[in-house]
Amino acid sequence: MQPDRNPILTVEKPFAIRFNEVDMMGVVWHGAYPVYLEDAREAFGARYGLSYHRYIAERVAAPVVEMNLSYKRALRYGMEPVVRISYRPVQAAKIIFDYEIVDPADGTVFLTARTVQVFTDFEGNLLWDPPAFYEQWKTQMGQQ
Amino acid sequence: MQPDRNPILTVEKPFAIRFNEVDMMGVVWHGAYPVYLEDAREAFGARYGLSYHRYIAERVAAPVVEMNLSYKRALRYGMEPVVRISYRPVQAAKIIFDYEIVDPADGTVFLTARTVQVFTDFEGNLLWDPPAFYEQWKTQMGQQ
Amino acid sequence: MQPDRNPILTVEKPFAIRFNEVDMMGVVWHGAYPVYLEDAREAFGARYGLSYHRYIAERVAAPVVEMNLSYKRALRYGMEPVVRISYRPVQAAKIIFDYEIVDPADGTVFLTARTVQVFTDFEGNLLWDPPAFYEQWKTQMGQQ
Amino acid sequence: MQPDRNPILTVEKPFAIRFNEVDMMGVVWHGAYPVYLEDAREAFGARYGLSYHRYIAERVAAPVVEMNLSYKRALRYGMEPVVRISYRPVQAAKIIFDYEIVDPADGTVFLTARTVQVFTDFEGNLLWDPPAFYEQWKTQMGQQ
Repeated sequence: MQPDRNPILTVEKPFAIRFNEVDMMGVVWHGAYPVYLEDAREAFGARYGLSYHRYIAERVAAPVVEMNLSYKRALRYGMEPVVRISYRPVQAAKIIFDYEIVDPADGTVFLTARTVQVFTDFEGNLLWDPPAFYEQWKTQMGQQ
Repeated sequence: MQPDRNPILTVEKPFAIRFNEVDMMGVVWHGAYPVYLEDAREAFGARYGLSYHRYIAERVAAPVVEMNLSYKRALRYGMEPVVRISYRPVQAAKIIFDYEIVDPADGTVFLTARTVQVFTDFEGNLLWDPPAFYEQWKTQMGQQ
Repeated sequence: MQPDRNPILTVEKPFAIRFNEVDMMGVVWHGAYPVYLEDAREAFGARYGLSYHRYIAERVAAPVVEMNLSYKRALRYGMEPVVRISYRPVQAAKIIFDYEIVDPADGTVFLTARTVQVFTDFEGNLLWDPPAFYEQWKTQMGQQ
Repeated sequence: MQPDRNPILTVEKPFAIRFNEVDMMGVVWHGAYPVYLEDAREAFGARYGLSYHRYIAERVAAPVVEMNLSYKRALRYGMEPVVRISYRPVQAAKIIFDYEIVDPADGTVFLTARTVQVFTDFEGNLLWDPPAFYEQWKTQMGQQ
């Protein structure tokens, strides 16, 4: 039996807004969101086996080369939203994730975002072909 | 005499890479860049008279609603790049800035970015029309 | 029946080390720890009913006026320590917490710390006497 | 001719309070100060030749093992204080700095602090004796 073709790989991670993430207007400072996205990638990696530790073991880095954030509504101190991360398969030697930060109670969307990562060696040289372990991972996950 | 039509308003701000902005791969963590952009907006505001203090005095907030970052090359600890911020005039009730982080010695580009800000009142309600002080500022600056 | 005299109020909060908290030496940057302590205070407040929300409702701020950190061993990316926070009752109009960051598996201590908070009004003026709600809380908790 | 015995080595570094360093009470979040101290150490190292680059070249790390902060008055957005760092010579294999953050206009003190650093190799093993380059630096600087 084969896995489904391109099942959607997604993780929802709840998080709390920290006091120090909020600016003097009483809302989360826009520059604090990359941490939420990083936490989501962590959670994704832990769930699906694609963590920094794996990259490091393979002597590959996966730097973010594009990050696009679209802020829909302000997050405030004390809120308990979730960040939803979804893997978006592409042929190129890239890792693309889409994100949404939402209120799990009523579905309000606070942020949508996308990150694009590439592969480099430890000296920072771009790898034009996806590393073997990543190709293997995609196959295992049914992502073409 | 009229000011030039749409002279390009731009500021270059030198900065140093801090130890704590660098990750364990030896390069600036991608989530640290929003601070550099904020510093550039500060420098722009100080030069051209469009600071947070002005907004606050007018009881207007100008939250970032879009931030797009394109990472071209890694910044490393000890580098002394400049961030160049340029104002991009539009008709809508928005403030748009373009950014480049470059090596002033040889012109290497490390990052290009854009932010879009809107206007809200202190309760976070969107202002559909630009505040009067902003329209006045644009006129003074020859930005149509 | 009275509550015990001065039962030790303590909370243990597990946390994960984030990629961006680690510096280029591969260890958590010393300046990242105040966030761990703040998270511990949050957890303490949530458990025992002494949160920022309560302060704000009472129009009281509780700024940190002393923070002492003693770093025993380096935390590394991927570790999953716990921060243990303990309330230390004093007569003065102060809130004192002691902290330990430990490896729950073997008891290794990574950090010990203490914070001292005072009470101010929203204009930042020091309150020489503890606010009534805080005195009441101490009594409820059996802290003299 | 000998240099003076223990001349005080000190640097004053002006800095601006950033929007994102201010919390929703309108004052600098207490956890933001370690960056100011790190900036001061950078400035000290640049002036007196004791930088991270030097440590790295010598394959020595100098982790902070104690950091004590005493907050005297709140810093606010838009303030332009200076951080004053002073070297405190000791016999032990340690680097001790004292800090003050002050308003250069009227001498108001916002923070006093101290950091203690030790020496380790790149595997994190404590060096019980000061590295030769550091002893040499102390002698050159007239610090006994």
